[in-house]
Amino acid sequence: MTDNWFIEKYTPYSGLGFSVRERLHDQQSPFQRIEVFENADYGRVLTLDGCVMLTDRDEFVYHEMITHPAILTHPAPENVLIVGGGDGGTVREVCRHPEVKRVDLVEIDEAVIEVSRRFFPGLTTRLEDPRVTIRCMDGFEYMDAHQGAYDVIIVDSIDPVGEAAKLFTSSFYSKVHAGLRENGTAVFQTESPFFSSDVLARVLRLLRPHFSFVQPYLAFIPTYPSGMWSFTIASLRGNIMEQGLLRQPGFQGEMKYFTPEMFNSAFSLPNFIKTALAD
Amino acid sequence: MTDNWFIEKYTPYSGLGFSVRERLHDQQSPFQRIEVFENADYGRVLTLDGCVMLTDRDEFVYHEMITHPAILTHPAPENVLIVGGGDGGTVREVCRHPEVKRVDLVEIDEAVIEVSRRFFPGLTTRLEDPRVTIRCMDGFEYMDAHQGAYDVIIVDSIDPVGEAAKLFTSSFYSKVHAGLRENGTAVFQTESPFFSSDVLARVLRLLRPHFSFVQPYLAFIPTYPSGMWSFTIASLRGNIMEQGLLRQPGFQGEMKYFTPEMFNSAFSLPNFIKTALAD
Repeated sequence: MTDNWFIEKYTPYSGLGFSVRERLHDQQSPFQRIEVFENADYGRVLTLDGCVMLTDRDEFVYHEMITHPAILTHPAPENVLIVGGGDGGTVREVCRHPEVKRVDLVEIDEAVIEVSRRFFPGLTTRLEDPRVTIRCMDGFEYMDAHQGAYDVIIVDSIDPVGEAAKLFTSSFYSKVHAGLRENGTAVFQTESPFFSSDVLARVLRLLRPHFSFVQPYLAFIPTYPSGMWSFTIASLRGNIMEQGLLRQPGFQGEMKYFTPEMFNSAFSLPNFIKTALAD
Repeated sequence: MTDNWFIEKYTPYSGLGFSVRERLHDQQSPFQRIEVFENADYGRVLTLDGCVMLTDRDEFVYHEMITHPAILTHPAPENVLIVGGGDGGTVREVCRHPEVKRVDLVEIDEAVIEVSRRFFPGLTTRLEDPRVTIRCMDGFEYMDAHQGAYDVIIVDSIDPVGEAAKLFTSSFYSKVHAGLRENGTAVFQTESPFFSSDVLARVLRLLRPHFSFVQPYLAFIPTYPSGMWSFTIASLRGNIMEQGLLRQPGFQGEMKYFTPEMFNSAFSLPNFIKTALAD
């Protein structure tokens, strides 16, 4: 192992390693350290405080799966808020939907947006879409000032450490609930249930008082810890899984991960996760 | 990165790293290098020629998922052949089924069985089951001598390199077909479709002339390349997915991964895999 490897240690004892073909960027923003490097397998890799946020090769899984289940199960997803997501990937997926009339992106760290524009042009394609408004500010403050405004809120946050820890609290979920319109849906990235089923269990427990339906689902994300990633969808309209997808996306052929079958399948959980969540 | 790390390089450019708490075993058998070490996250780790075969922590996914779909969709899985699988994990899962009357384990490398008995007692619990017969010999030769003998054949092989490459050929699949009884089912581990969709595509193409139903399915295996692993089931009874599970296992509560819902969900494939397989 030479010095030109980057290892994201999932714990002190294991982690995914990438050979660094070229270091492209290294910056300490007011909020976090932002690095970009090039790897022969995954293309460009964005890390925040040493954690892999996305790679060219597999970012599509995360961005499709955090977006389409919530949008396609909402009867009229006109106003969408994205909290976090400064890389632009979630905006790109949301903007594929013609039903969406307005997208507000609230990212606390402007530098992430700048870095993504420069190094990940495939993610930022829709940041100039006329429906999109970008606000660089704290999600908590933004939501306090915009209650009852959104059909769908997507919490595209980093891991629950440091500044982002407050995005995994009852106080935040209460604000998300208050930010939604009557039939609203919220969706959250909720970590790896292989390594952190405790985080997922806590999120579910904290969300349930606010929503009539709360359900985690899974996706394969090779460059995230364990490769097994969870999202949690929370709705004010009851069991949206039973209602199913309300529309077939016209752009289905352009998606790389999401299919109507994958939507249904993603909600099945392995027995060890069901057990961990039932404790 | 210090010398007490083991990195399984999936390619020359990336791979999963484990800190080695203790090296427990290192042996060159006539067939391969067999190593066992202890890691704080995953427990004991077995590697063959430097590739992770299993860990204490996540072996249950592989062994449950290579076994139960084939057994539970077969109307009378009385005689079962396992090709490879010397670690004993697949035998353990097969033996949970009371319908199974006979299990033949054909492992070319006796040393793997010995190492597993010594270091992975949780996997070898059923090697002494009176239904189990162990043969240490070449799977090709064994199958030539045992035609039309099995209800289910499980090909629990290593990656398609070296000696195991011949387990990914039409000639081998022809022998598997010949080894089955009239209503037989075969199942194969078929690599990561994230890194090696070409391998999976080739396996499907080679299997289809021999079987009336051939379908891949997926499972989350954190310590295998990309964490997304495929198996392929092949049946002489037509579409066994439509028929569904023929029995509910009495030991459902003891399983850690498999559930009837996961069985159905596992057959859904992300769009990029469907596309790669359609080429």
